[in-house]
Amino acid sequence: MRQEWLAFIGSLRKGSYNRALFDVFSGMAPADVVWHEAEIRALPFYNPDMAPPPEADHFWQQVRSADALVFFTPEYNGSIPAVLKNAIDWASRDPQGSPLVGKPAVVLGASQGLFGTLRSQLHLRQILSFVGMELVQRPEVLVSEAHLKLEPRGQLNDPVAVRLMKTLAQNLYERVGRMLAV
Amino acid sequence: MRQEWLAFIGSLRKGSYNRALFDVFSGMAPADVVWHEAEIRALPFYNPDMAPPPEADHFWQQVRSADALVFFTPEYNGSIPAVLKNAIDWASRDPQGSPLVGKPAVVLGASQGLFGTLRSQLHLRQILSFVGMELVQRPEVLVSEAHLKLEPRGQLNDPVAVRLMKTLAQNLYERVGRMLAV
Repeated sequence: MRQEWLAFIGSLRKGSYNRALFDVFSGMAPADVVWHEAEIRALPFYNPDMAPPPEADHFWQQVRSADALVFFTPEYNGSIPAVLKNAIDWASRDPQGSPLVGKPAVVLGASQGLFGTLRSQLHLRQILSFVGMELVQRPEVLVSEAHLKLEPRGQLNDPVAVRLMKTLAQNLYERVGRMLAV
Repeated sequence: MRQEWLAFIGSLRKGSYNRALFDVFSGMAPADVVWHEAEIRALPFYNPDMAPPPEADHFWQQVRSADALVFFTPEYNGSIPAVLKNAIDWASRDPQGSPLVGKPAVVLGASQGLFGTLRSQLHLRQILSFVGMELVQRPEVLVSEAHLKLEPRGQLNDPVAVRLMKTLAQNLYERVGRMLAV
């Protein structure tokens, strides 16, 4: 059955390792998965005083219609980038009610360091749990020393990570499939 | 001795409880403390590809010349607001070297909930430790049920919190004083 997956790419860098990781992961999803990329960089800082701009309406529409959210996070100063936190805060404030509650999600991350976004993933998983998402927690995907392993346009020279990512894609696909079948 | 303290106010709301908390706290600092407010809302999302805008230069100058940073954080979805994380990420990337390393800092927070920014303070304290700030950790200031206690323009109807805040201001003042005396 067709599934819509929405990718959140936490780095705005053109040569981002997390964008490259998305390129790899998107090729691993089953054929009836349709990918979209969440448009998060044009969202202003969340401010309850502000009338939601058109970018927020568009973004809410994207999140609502997704069957699953897939987060690719770098690690900035031991936590997630602001652009990612801001997107989650906007998503949770959808005036139609938070579309995050009960929606499946997974987290992946790549960094140049030896710990591969360990700290930022801990924060992100806490935040996603708080907003009520159904996290598919296993396997964990933490790509360390990304500059040695990830090539632009979807090549990952790390057989263990490749295997884990395939399993994660399958696990998410099955979780969403069970929800859609109900 | 004159000290320059730089306030980071994590909520952009006009009627923000954390801005009201700043109004209260700023009145508690010793007379030779000069307050400034960090200009963080005009900073774009941090992006290493981007040439730093004038707002970043101005902000770096503010952080460099501060003797201490004072963070007022709300709690959004169990963590800190994006505008605060973004400011910390910009600050740490000052091309002259991070001005955060070794600089004293304190954290305060107010929220309408019963736990008074407990979760966001945990994340914020981890991030500030990561960037090498010298956190004055005690006493903790978590103002719960802020809508019942905080009035605009600097009135806090919570004698315990008032006492803790006075102690925190004094502890920060002494910590900075010792550093400036060396």
